[in-house]
Amino acid sequence: MTNPTAAMLVIGDEILSGRTRDSNMHHLARELTLRGIDLRESRVVSDDHDGIVAAVRALAAAHDHVFTSGGIGPTHDDITAEAVAAAMDTPIGVRDDARGILAAHYEARGVELNAARLRMARIPDGATLIDNPVSAAPGFSLRNVHVMAGVPRIFEAMLAGLLPSIPGGRPVLSQSVRVERGEGDVAEPLADLAKAHPALSIGSYPFSENGVTGTNIVIRGAEGAEIEAALVQLSERFGA
Amino acid sequence: MTNPTAAMLVIGDEILSGRTRDSNMHHLARELTLRGIDLRESRVVSDDHDGIVAAVRALAAAHDHVFTSGGIGPTHDDITAEAVAAAMDTPIGVRDDARGILAAHYEARGVELNAARLRMARIPDGATLIDNPVSAAPGFSLRNVHVMAGVPRIFEAMLAGLLPSIPGGRPVLSQSVRVERGEGDVAEPLADLAKAHPALSIGSYPFSENGVTGTNIVIRGAEGAEIEAALVQLSERFGA
Repeated sequence: MTNPTAAMLVIGDEILSGRTRDSNMHHLARELTLRGIDLRESRVVSDDHDGIVAAVRALAAAHDHVFTSGGIGPTHDDITAEAVAAAMDTPIGVRDDARGILAAHYEARGVELNAARLRMARIPDGATLIDNPVSAAPGFSLRNVHVMAGVPRIFEAMLAGLLPSIPGGRPVLSQSVRVERGEGDVAEPLADLAKAHPALSIGSYPFSENGVTGTNIVIRGAEGAEIEAALVQLSERFGA
Repeated sequence: MTNPTAAMLVIGDEILSGRTRDSNMHHLARELTLRGIDLRESRVVSDDHDGIVAAVRALAAAHDHVFTSGGIGPTHDDITAEAVAAAMDTPIGVRDDARGILAAHYEARGVELNAARLRMARIPDGATLIDNPVSAAPGFSLRNVHVMAGVPRIFEAMLAGLLPSIPGGRPVLSQSVRVERGEGDVAEPLADLAKAHPALSIGSYPFSENGVTGTNIVIRGAEGAEIEAALVQLSERFGA
């Protein structure tokens, strides 16, 4: 049985201009890894209707799940809901359940539910709402596309509510070893190890700190016993 | 005259597993913005030959420049150079100029230029080397694809050497205003402003800190005078 696959789509000019540094992808990557869902690719696109539509179509066709962040607020540049609906050929309009959530939220705060805020109740037909415990305006899941806010605190809260409803796979296990040898010295043994264990993913990440140069070796796989065996072979090879 | 466009391709399992948080895209975004090169999209793919080939082809066809990071070290999972060569239908092999750079670097340090390290001299035919002042092993530009290291310090040094050779455009100017009103209250005035200034890009980013809720409004464009005019209209509207 293979694990479900996923892709991330980050939407927002502010990421591509360098004004804002995205943190949602890294958060999603960690959460999915814990649940045995394989994040296979990630894209960042600007606030452009056609660009979002093309990316959603490509990613939704290629992966079990697509997670989006950004572009679901009340302003003119928040066009994600419309674009996702278009990508999935689904009508979109203000939906009563979403309007009710917003009305209750703003009434309790004495804030007017004006036309701009009401845009956040635009939800594609047949979509399931994603709870927003921070600022009420919901995200939604339309088939395999999960649309969430860009503000990290809200994205993370929405994801925490959404993930339990998504079947996971076998969590990927991981062990890492720090070796004080350059990547060029560990490359050959690692290639041998990778060949001997095709089910494992073996990565190497050079470091250089306080004058010490070395390599962090990360072994990932589904079987703890196989990872252990590979670690033993590694330590025999390096005498660690 | 429109500005040159660019895309970023980040290559590495460690980003998609959440082990490492990418910082190269954010760095590139800021550098390109300063030079008037429009970063239009970014992708992250895993250490998978076919995935890298498909992404390089799609991005190189759609943009003036593609910048890649990751996968050019000496180990078995460093497959970027091969994949980029394949994507561009170009032969690749150990090239004398790259071998010379590595030989000199390792000889000076008393380190053997073994087979693994020699892999870093594999450069596609016709590519131009990108200088690596940190650890010698060069990147390369093959037509409009610029292949650089994933280690941030090396990526940044390579990019600093590369960028002066790439023609820029008109730097995008940007001004931002902090308004202590929720996004839902500024949405309508901002939409009006965006309609009145179609050449400007007007973004809004909600914040909530120390109990104060508000919106950062960012106005971007090529003409300083038009940005100023829009700012005046904004402050009239909000009495700021």
